Amino acid sequence: MDEKDMKILDFLIQDGRKPFTEIAKELNTSESSVRKRVKKMEEDGVIKGYSVMVDTPKMGYTVVAQTGFDTNPEDFLSVAQELCTFEEVKKVFTSTGDHMIMTEIWAKNGKELSEIIFNKLGKIKGIKKVCPAIILEQLK
Amino acid sequence: MDEKDMKILDFLIQDGRKPFTEIAKELNTSESSVRKRVKKMEEDGVIKGYSVMVDTPKMGYTVVAQTGFDTNPEDFLSVAQELCTFEEVKKVFTSTGDHMIMTEIWAKNGKELSEIIFNKLGKIKGIKKVCPAIILEQLK
Amino acid sequence: MDEKDMKILDFLIQDGRKPFTEIAKELNTSESSVRKRVKKMEEDGVIKGYSVMVDTPKMGYTVVAQTGFDTNPEDFLSVAQELCTFEEVKKVFTSTGDHMIMTEIWAKNGKELSEIIFNKLGKIKGIKKVCPAIILEQLK
Amino acid sequence: MDEKDMKILDFLIQDGRKPFTEIAKELNTSESSVRKRVKKMEEDGVIKGYSVMVDTPKMGYTVVAQTGFDTNPEDFLSVAQELCTFEEVKKVFTSTGDHMIMTEIWAKNGKELSEIIFNKLGKIKGIKKVCPAIILEQLK
Amino acid sequence: MDEKDMKILDFLIQDGRKPFTEIAKELNTSESSVRKRVKKMEEDGVIKGYSVMVDTPKMGYTVVAQTGFDTNPEDFLSVAQELCTFEEVKKVFTSTGDHMIMTEIWAKNGKELSEIIFNKLGKIKGIKKVCPAIILEQLK
Amino acid sequence: MDEKDMKILDFLIQDGRKPFTEIAKELNTSESSVRKRVKKMEEDGVIKGYSVMVDTPKMGYTVVAQTGFDTNPEDFLSVAQELCTFEEVKKVFTSTGDHMIMTEIWAKNGKELSEIIFNKLGKIKGIKKVCPAIILEQLK
Amino acid sequence: MDEKDMKILDFLIQDGRKPFTEIAKELNTSESSVRKRVKKMEEDGVIKGYSVMVDTPKMGYTVVAQTGFDTNPEDFLSVAQELCTFEEVKKVFTSTGDHMIMTEIWAKNGKELSEIIFNKLGKIKGIKKVCPAIILEQLK
Amino acid sequence: MDEKDMKILDFLIQDGRKPFTEIAKELNTSESSVRKRVKKMEEDGVIKGYSVMVDTPKMGYTVVAQTGFDTNPEDFLSVAQELCTFEEVKKVFTSTGDHMIMTEIWAKNGKELSEIIFNKLGKIKGIKKVCPAIILEQLK
Repeated sequence: MDEKDMKILDFLIQDGRKPFTEIAKELNTSESSVRKRVKKMEEDGVIKGYSVMVDTPKMGYTVVAQTGFDTNPEDFLSVAQELCTFEEVKKVFTSTGDHMIMTEIWAKNGKELSEIIFNKLGKIKGIKKVCPAIILEQLK
Repeated sequence: MDEKDMKILDFLIQDGRKPFTEIAKELNTSESSVRKRVKKMEEDGVIKGYSVMVDTPKMGYTVVAQTGFDTNPEDFLSVAQELCTFEEVKKVFTSTGDHMIMTEIWAKNGKELSEIIFNKLGKIKGIKKVCPAIILEQLK
Repeated sequence: MDEKDMKILDFLIQDGRKPFTEIAKELNTSESSVRKRVKKMEEDGVIKGYSVMVDTPKMGYTVVAQTGFDTNPEDFLSVAQELCTFEEVKKVFTSTGDHMIMTEIWAKNGKELSEIIFNKLGKIKGIKKVCPAIILEQLK
Repeated sequence: MDEKDMKILDFLIQDGRKPFTEIAKELNTSESSVRKRVKKMEEDGVIKGYSVMVDTPKMGYTVVAQTGFDTNPEDFLSVAQELCTFEEVKKVFTSTGDHMIMTEIWAKNGKELSEIIFNKLGKIKGIKKVCPAIILEQLK
Repeated sequence: MDEKDMKILDFLIQDGRKPFTEIAKELNTSESSVRKRVKKMEEDGVIKGYSVMVDTPKMGYTVVAQTGFDTNPEDFLSVAQELCTFEEVKKVFTSTGDHMIMTEIWAKNGKELSEIIFNKLGKIKGIKKVCPAIILEQLK
Repeated sequence: MDEKDMKILDFLIQDGRKPFTEIAKELNTSESSVRKRVKKMEEDGVIKGYSVMVDTPKMGYTVVAQTGFDTNPEDFLSVAQELCTFEEVKKVFTSTGDHMIMTEIWAKNGKELSEIIFNKLGKIKGIKKVCPAIILEQLK
Repeated sequence: MDEKDMKILDFLIQDGRKPFTEIAKELNTSESSVRKRVKKMEEDGVIKGYSVMVDTPKMGYTVVAQTGFDTNPEDFLSVAQELCTFEEVKKVFTSTGDHMIMTEIWAKNGKELSEIIFNKLGKIKGIKKVCPAIILEQLK
Repeated sequence: MDEKDMKILDFLIQDGRKPFTEIAKELNTSESSVRKRVKKMEEDGVIKGYSVMVDTPKMGYTVVAQTGFDTNPEDFLSVAQELCTFEEVKKVFTSTGDHMIMTEIWAKNGKELSEIIFNKLGKIKGIKKVCPAIILEQLK
């Protein structure tokens, strides 16, 4: 990855649908060069995909919870992988924080969050503790 | 927002660059109807923008840290807003977890993270404590 | 619920036995209108009931403890429901705080609190940890 | 307080508007005896008042937060007293738990909770930290 | 217990071997009155015994540890009682702090403390976690 | 200190008023030898004093709190020393636990504990946080 | 150990390969005296060995983690001993901190750390929780 | 760094005084090649120095404390650097754990540790909290 790749990425992080012609113009290069570089970054896995940024409350999800999971160490990997299979769980990563598995869960309201956590996720074998923190407002 | 809007959003969350013609075909509707609905959701702020999903280690950021900030309550809002202005701070939100301000910071390595936190962010007036947790691996 | 309903509720939260005639007078409406609205709110479940506010130390309960319970996730719902059946447990709710089940327990003294927690509640299947915090003084 | 007082209180805790005639019948005593005893308990401060139990989500308060406050010790009493003056703060008590001042705050949504905590309460002199925990569902 | 009893106790808390004649003189009463009151307080269990206050480092115990124990709730009472039977465990009480069982353990050095905790106490059935805090210096 | 000293101490820890003649008989030595050894241990500071063990609830202290104090490091020593001067503070020591200063405080009830902590101790310069844990029952 | 031994140790702690002739010169003694004293300290176990101090990032270990382990008390000793057998675990000690077993683990990156902790160490029988903290920069 | 460098380092980590001739023999290479490689690693800073591994209790240090420091963010770097200047502070590093500055401090006993922490280190400007954890036994 050279500096031009980084600049292209910066544009796409800001606006994932920005036309390559516009990016090319701003970088004083050709549309085909931008296209080739983006394709290369997609093939290398630098770019993993494209997404839309949504306003979750406006979608009806009034409760977005960063939720940590504690597991028995021997169940850690299977729990992390099984969490990935749930539609309500939007993100899963491992971390050095208070909980080694962190997730982001979307729910319509507090009662639905309880049900997702305890009736669905809580039944995964090996989970010992679940710790949700509610996001109050996203600023950036 | 009706069910068709939700389905369109689901497609775009999976792939933010998916052509409207393909979405239209899968939903048995016209491209212009999809375009109109997407435009409406953009105007209403349901769709806040588009982005690219990147592999941070492959970009050279070996240290991605979910970093909590504690502040004096009277400085809370100004700190949260000032954090948004730093390029290294990719996300900022308020939360009911251990720290009321949570951020995501990208750094080349541990030493750079120290420098960002203490030489740059730590100088914002009103910050009392900074608690970084390193993301080890993103699974979803 | 309109603004008049909210005002009636405000009066009743202050004084749950306030006569409807007095409420009607203060809101410039008729007693039958207040009665009808209250009945509607009772039917809709906005009003769940009426209660008396007591001074627990004067009743002989020198120890009122906000007590958190940790459970295995798969036992969470059954534990929460079983806690509701104990007379000493006055409130039960689920929360995003340090403990996902929070209760309020009344006891004559510290020794009785120990006995309630360990000889009675502690025997519910699935409880892993019990964390009481004593209320020192209620100010509002 | 004798046993009959305790029984009267039990009835009123269940239903604060229960007519004295019904209580009298169940306790095999006269309505005037119940009335006298209740009046005595009101004068002694055992009964501090009457209230209505509401369903906060149905009232439009989707976020009810048990919120702890840390203060400098010398500001503890003034902070606790000032918190009592805010309409949004429904309960205030001192506790041996993680935070010596605990409150219950009602808000329409997460954003309003942020604003109450930081724009209003956070400006009280002497507060060092604010820790909200969201009530997901009240079971009893 | 009247005020004279409290004063006698205050003298004995300061100096548990203080002769009754001296206490009597300071309280303007007779030695037999003091003796009778002390005997009464012993019979009532107000006075549970007499002890000597020692300097543990000078006795060769360089490590005195306030040690908390977490247990499964159903094993709480049996663990607390079994801890009382160990000679190295000088005090045992139940508490609302971070650990519901708190003890005081005396050891010659850090290695001996490890051995007491893990080879002896750790084998009591039902203990889940042991948390020692070393007393650095006793000031009062 | 030799083994005989240790045995004498063991007797006195059990019963601080045990007559030297009885100790002498059990150790097959003379009363004067015991007296000499005890005097030596008093002079060396191994024995710091004698005390009476009391049942605090029976004395009217329904709330005994192990209370931790956090201070600014530069005020640590002066705070610890000033805490020693309060009659309500029965013990003071420094520790490696969650709070570097730990105390034992006796109070008639929760409200008095609040007043001691905030109206008296909280005014010592340099204290940042006060964390009381209530002793529920002393078992040994 | 006398003062001269301490001074020799100080030199060797600074530079473990410092020739004995240089140490001898600085202490105004003979090389053979230094050699004899060092040998004595090696035999007594005061000196446990010699090592090289390395820059772990320059060796390719970008993630060095101080990692705490919680175990069931009865498995504590076997877990601690088994951890010592892993090549990736550079240090193991028992501590009064938040975790009674502390280790230092070296890994190439976050993903490798996850794998070491969960695929290797996590399979040791008796481990309940693993808490890594990443060292950002070593200053001394 | 190639594989041969890594093997040389492994030998030196085990025994920092191992003669190069022995290392050369085990790696089937010449002493001058080992010497050259070691010199190169010293110049590159991979090898930062050599040290002796000591048994701290046998040296008279009965208390070795891993001690965390919390600071105001703006004082973080100056505190970390000033801690490096104290002889009693053997290691200093920054970390993502509970405390961003971690140190290792050696003391003769608990009382000396108190004095080092509060009379010496605690006076560094900007330190807010000091958290020592005592190492009980080093196993590796």
